[in-house]
Amino acid sequence: MVNRKINYKMHKYSIGIDFGTLSGRAVIVNTTTGEEEAVALHEYTHGVMDEKLPDGTPLGVDWALQHPQDYLDVFRITIPEVITKAGVTPGQIAGVGIDFTACTMLPVKADGTPLCFLEKYMGRPNAWVKLWKHHAAQEEANRLNSIAEERGEKFLKRYGGKISSEWMIPKIWQTVNEDPEIYDAAERFIEAADWVVWQLTGEETRNTCTAGYKAIWHKHDGYPHDMFFRALHPKMEKLADEKLSRILLPMGTRAGTISEAGARMTGLNKGTAVAVANVDAHVSVPAVGIISPGKMLAIIGTSTCHMILGDTEKEVPGMCGVVEDGIIEGFFGYEAGQSCVGDHFQWFVDNCTTAEYKAEADSMGIDLHTLLTEKAARLLPGESGLLALDWWNGNRSVLVDVDLTGMIVGMTLTTRPEEIYRTLIEATAFGTRMIIETFEENGVPVKEFYAAGGIAEKNPFVMQIYADVINREIKISGSPQAPALGSAMFGAVAAGKEAGGFDTIMEAAAIMAKVKESTYKPVGKNVLVYDRLFAEYRILHDYFGHGSNDVMKRLKLIKKEVRN
Amino acid sequence: MVNRKINYKMHKYSIGIDFGTLSGRAVIVNTTTGEEEAVALHEYTHGVMDEKLPDGTPLGVDWALQHPQDYLDVFRITIPEVITKAGVTPGQIAGVGIDFTACTMLPVKADGTPLCFLEKYMGRPNAWVKLWKHHAAQEEANRLNSIAEERGEKFLKRYGGKISSEWMIPKIWQTVNEDPEIYDAAERFIEAADWVVWQLTGEETRNTCTAGYKAIWHKHDGYPHDMFFRALHPKMEKLADEKLSRILLPMGTRAGTISEAGARMTGLNKGTAVAVANVDAHVSVPAVGIISPGKMLAIIGTSTCHMILGDTEKEVPGMCGVVEDGIIEGFFGYEAGQSCVGDHFQWFVDNCTTAEYKAEADSMGIDLHTLLTEKAARLLPGESGLLALDWWNGNRSVLVDVDLTGMIVGMTLTTRPEEIYRTLIEATAFGTRMIIETFEENGVPVKEFYAAGGIAEKNPFVMQIYADVINREIKISGSPQAPALGSAMFGAVAAGKEAGGFDTIMEAAAIMAKVKESTYKPVGKNVLVYDRLFAEYRILHDYFGHGSNDVMKRLKLIKKEVRN
Repeated sequence: MVNRKINYKMHKYSIGIDFGTLSGRAVIVNTTTGEEEAVALHEYTHGVMDEKLPDGTPLGVDWALQHPQDYLDVFRITIPEVITKAGVTPGQIAGVGIDFTACTMLPVKADGTPLCFLEKYMGRPNAWVKLWKHHAAQEEANRLNSIAEERGEKFLKRYGGKISSEWMIPKIWQTVNEDPEIYDAAERFIEAADWVVWQLTGEETRNTCTAGYKAIWHKHDGYPHDMFFRALHPKMEKLADEKLSRILLPMGTRAGTISEAGARMTGLNKGTAVAVANVDAHVSVPAVGIISPGKMLAIIGTSTCHMILGDTEKEVPGMCGVVEDGIIEGFFGYEAGQSCVGDHFQWFVDNCTTAEYKAEADSMGIDLHTLLTEKAARLLPGESGLLALDWWNGNRSVLVDVDLTGMIVGMTLTTRPEEIYRTLIEATAFGTRMIIETFEENGVPVKEFYAAGGIAEKNPFVMQIYADVINREIKISGSPQAPALGSAMFGAVAAGKEAGGFDTIMEAAAIMAKVKESTYKPVGKNVLVYDRLFAEYRILHDYFGHGSNDVMKRLKLIKKEVRN
Repeated sequence: MVNRKINYKMHKYSIGIDFGTLSGRAVIVNTTTGEEEAVALHEYTHGVMDEKLPDGTPLGVDWALQHPQDYLDVFRITIPEVITKAGVTPGQIAGVGIDFTACTMLPVKADGTPLCFLEKYMGRPNAWVKLWKHHAAQEEANRLNSIAEERGEKFLKRYGGKISSEWMIPKIWQTVNEDPEIYDAAERFIEAADWVVWQLTGEETRNTCTAGYKAIWHKHDGYPHDMFFRALHPKMEKLADEKLSRILLPMGTRAGTISEAGARMTGLNKGTAVAVANVDAHVSVPAVGIISPGKMLAIIGTSTCHMILGDTEKEVPGMCGVVEDGIIEGFFGYEAGQSCVGDHFQWFVDNCTTAEYKAEADSMGIDLHTLLTEKAARLLPGESGLLALDWWNGNRSVLVDVDLTGMIVGMTLTTRPEEIYRTLIEATAFGTRMIIETFEENGVPVKEFYAAGGIAEKNPFVMQIYADVINREIKISGSPQAPALGSAMFGAVAAGKEAGGFDTIMEAAAIMAKVKESTYKPVGKNVLVYDRLFAEYRILHDYFGHGSNDVMKRLKLIKKEVRN
């Protein structure tokens, strides 16, 4: 991105704000040229609170909270900053869009005031924002799943058979169980994504994306029946009507416009269009130009999220969810995931590289990942004789089983660290191929493959392996902040063509979406070897993953028992 | 052992000499008290020649040769040294016994002169001693095995279905193939064990132990039929009669007495009894007091060798061999093995421990094995959730398959190096248990368990795991040089009771054999957990080892193909 000093006085701009796990980032984009003119970043003052509340109240194991003020500070600081950096006026801003981690949710009063802002609730953990990776509602998730199964709830199929502890309903149920007074005081439970939009517009709206993927909402069936909620807890019977909302706005629509208060906070003009809230991964889909079925986007970082559009609602085993209008209005948005990718490689570096390699990396002034990559890049596919199952953090898609664990086979006394490192990378690529093939086998074709995220952008070695393993050309996001760009695109659509934006996300994509010119193309002879290795991966995947030998679960059980 | 200055003038002594891979070691033992009075060590001047001959002739891949003069130097140096150290006279030495690595073999003239001592053959690799770990006859071993299978040779069953490339016949066949002139010039092919005895006594003798375990000899069937040897190579048809010998002496008999030349070389009196040669592992059996069936001895070092006596000849799947009179006269000596034990743990330390652990070990002034052991010892059995197949170097017993490779399952993002380290140790213990159970299931009971070798003597952590896994008390060799002690015992038997020795190895064992007072006893609650883990090990052992999924072999095949 070039920080041009030229002031396109006649041009219009759009601002996208991406709320991540540790910081928020704004980008300002020229809606005529598609150019990203400036970015600004604000790190959350309170970061992730996983040990104690601001007042010192200690938190339990697996808690992960955030402070809503940090989100408002992102608006307050980054919006004026990008406007100034870009050298434009607030009047040139046609629209604003935001995306957020999800499910990141909080209890608020009917006027939007977070309960944690009220002195009487400040010391109560359940009054705060539960971040996506808050895992303390696992017990509730487990019970929810068995109740749903017993009742034969058909929604389970849309989520690969399991509702995650990270999602909305288990997080609310935890509040009921642990602190019913907070549950009663909460007039609304809302995604942080929707809450920050509310702070800009002054009106509560909710989006179909988070509702569909994280709160068990369906375009035609709505939320689960009141009787299901009642089966969880009598207090929750009327949850959908009383504390959620049955009105959901699809992606690409306008949530409202900047309010008086919103204008004071951001420096934007009152009346500027604000898009319906979105999710960081999902908003990246149009940012790389995907606006039609058959094109998968993988956001590859510590974990991987896969998204693809379809024309119809299919039941694909092990997907994380399918939501009509959940990504692009008019299509079914499918999501799948791998729970351990960059984390996997980091585990290896942290636990399995020698002092010799550390010294070698230090002497070359590079980090261990770079050293291992250099060594691993000299190996041919199949040369190590190794094969792994990438389940160090369980398997999300397509097995949906957190109790699966890692496996590696083929070691000899001459096996070297870089061979294992490469094998772990290949294992995650095989995991992606398994997801692709599962989609295809179930009527959702995957013709093209796009990638975004830290690993996709920075690691050509990994991406070439992915191209060879999946035997598809890989196109890489052209923007280093794909989610913020996608949000800016939806901001421009919320503004509409007349106001200098676009009438549809397709039109916005034509100008604003971008991928890098250079792509990763599969190399024929590598593809042939990886086809053979993938056949082996699939056999082991099915053996360990589909119940032929539940050794992984039994080992976990033994581990649990001996520790007690 | 105490180097007593008291000269028991009335006592008799016996000397045992153990020829290892890099050195020879003599021990002198009082046959009245059983005390080991002194030891002496001589490192081979030429060590293992695996790159070139003494004249610079380069060697191929997988060659491993030795120099016969080094063996004679062991006699010349260590025998006088132990006599002097013990403060006794040559007249007090009742007998001498030796043991050797096997199959370590050489071509000699009819008078015992090694071909490599003759100037015309000095530059010819096949003229030298092929050490046990010379692996350059693999091609011959493979062809031998297929020819034997085609011909339906029943001897295969006695060796777990496969003749190893380390053994006598493949090593001889390599000579025929590569240097037929050396084959023709060789009037005898002989185990170095028997050759060194010949150098002491002046008479060629051969022992049933090496012939039985390494040269496909059987007490009743003899060597394979001439037609089998002819099928290998026409030149080899009369091998058994012309270049080996059909006269074999059982363990515990006398090979002869010290000759004039032997006396000059060693300082021993002419006429001193010399025992029939033995093998290092096998000779250790009576050294720990095992002289009857039901007691297994495991020599646990870089690899493990298991020996047990039986009353009858049973076919036990995957054993390395069963030889009548092969260990103790009157019994069937069974041998089994694990090809990767200490090597396994060393691989882990060399390849998979972090710079942090190295720094921690350095700061404590301990090595990485010690550090990992300290950390691993804090874990409970089963606590890691990990399980491995100990096949990093293939599987000798009970699967007899060099193409099997390592496997580990159960890793999560919190798995630590010491957990993997402990798992690899447990895997070798499960491998031992698999061998024990296979013996028992096939009619060879294993009631007691003894251990010798570096790991058995020095690593209580490993040995406690073994005791818990096999659920048997483990007795440890009382001598740090069990093989040399065993040889001294056979030397005393060669002398006989009248000359101050013993008439049988049983009598010798009653005085001279020793085990440590403290033993490793299974801990009940650990046994229960390991029973469950072993059940899992067995399932994976059978799945990967018995053809349900030959992924390990296919990965090796791919590895081989892509490297070419």
